[in-house]
Amino acid sequence: MTITTDATTPFVPPTAAEALERLGMPMIDAMRTQRAVRRLKPEPVAHDVLLPLLELSLKAPTSSNTQDWSYLVVEDPEQKARLGRLYWKLYRVFNPIVERMAKGNEQELRNMRPGQWQAEHFAEIPVFVIPCYRRNLKHKPVGRPQLSVSAFYGSVYPAVQNLLLGCRAVGLGASLQTLPIWWVPSVRKILDLPRDVRPVCIIPIGWAQGNYGPTVRRPIGEVVHLDHFGNQPFATT
Amino acid sequence: MTITTDATTPFVPPTAAEALERLGMPMIDAMRTQRAVRRLKPEPVAHDVLLPLLELSLKAPTSSNTQDWSYLVVEDPEQKARLGRLYWKLYRVFNPIVERMAKGNEQELRNMRPGQWQAEHFAEIPVFVIPCYRRNLKHKPVGRPQLSVSAFYGSVYPAVQNLLLGCRAVGLGASLQTLPIWWVPSVRKILDLPRDVRPVCIIPIGWAQGNYGPTVRRPIGEVVHLDHFGNQPFATT
Repeated sequence: MTITTDATTPFVPPTAAEALERLGMPMIDAMRTQRAVRRLKPEPVAHDVLLPLLELSLKAPTSSNTQDWSYLVVEDPEQKARLGRLYWKLYRVFNPIVERMAKGNEQELRNMRPGQWQAEHFAEIPVFVIPCYRRNLKHKPVGRPQLSVSAFYGSVYPAVQNLLLGCRAVGLGASLQTLPIWWVPSVRKILDLPRDVRPVCIIPIGWAQGNYGPTVRRPIGEVVHLDHFGNQPFATT
Repeated sequence: MTITTDATTPFVPPTAAEALERLGMPMIDAMRTQRAVRRLKPEPVAHDVLLPLLELSLKAPTSSNTQDWSYLVVEDPEQKARLGRLYWKLYRVFNPIVERMAKGNEQELRNMRPGQWQAEHFAEIPVFVIPCYRRNLKHKPVGRPQLSVSAFYGSVYPAVQNLLLGCRAVGLGASLQTLPIWWVPSVRKILDLPRDVRPVCIIPIGWAQGNYGPTVRRPIGEVVHLDHFGNQPFATT
């Protein structure tokens, strides 16, 4: 989908019915054209669109069917400003490191511009979704054993992917980010999270100003190993 | 989709073209009817079906676009038998605990039967996919800080969800599991994994013997908190 940005005509979001109709798009097309869309229009995202997308996202599986999610939906300007200030502090620390690593690589530096735009306009983004999950002995956001940690994130990220695909289908821009909530204690304080409700990532959402895919990925033959690591019969080279 | 299990007529899997055609199903239908399907037919899953599904799954995002996946695809009977023995040991330890916790809850005990079937028939399942990701300073499967751990799993589980949705669309049964690979050192030994390539979960795949959804989830109003934890304007009660 190409979204034209014509500065002379104001953007009118689709009605909820129009937007949700698009969830019937062929699944393969949604997956093939999914990509991080970081440049977002400031117009609000109606609850009549957002809530059905969140609802659909929860059709994803959870470990032992625990369904221990909390979705923090942040729209309040003051709350967004607090999150924006937190992100800006982190961005100013981490971005120079990333930029230095990309030095001389024009393509990579160009790819970083939408991220820069977002860091500077964070508080103007219409809505953030911060998926959280309940921590307990079987589901741990940090530490060990590995599989209790895997079970924790495996109960959240499948739903996150549903949400990202849902956004793509209806024409909303979205992306999966962890850096803005890197400093968990501050996030907990801003959102009044109980100690056992852990934020996992943050998804800025708004009507897309940028474009969707297609995207480029590593050839499948390089990724697949048959029966033993190193046995790659589908690799072409 | 209802799959009839008629013992008198042998099961003939769809051709690859027929199966892949189904990836065009409306996205919302795939999501709404996704569920863990654990009873699987023993007939093999053709590479012409599996590889395009794996390829499509990789359209999901990864942290900083690292794309550091390795997919271990296990079909060899001896390798499957090794994984099956490992799982059986873990299942015999963990299942009595789970059963004791479910005691008296008939529904929950009934829900556990497909899992029991699978533990007993693990080595007969046609194919396993074990998604792995490369561990480094920014992407950690265990330990701290939380967001490096989140970035690790956030680079794998979105692709896993694409794979589960893809399986659902073409008519393959699949489920997301962590218990069978709980003991990571044994898994690494069986699969010859390098130390920095970490298994995340295991997805047993075969033509579906069981049924797909719909599934029941918590009401969205209970899951969503607006701006602050505890503020639940969409809850109905």
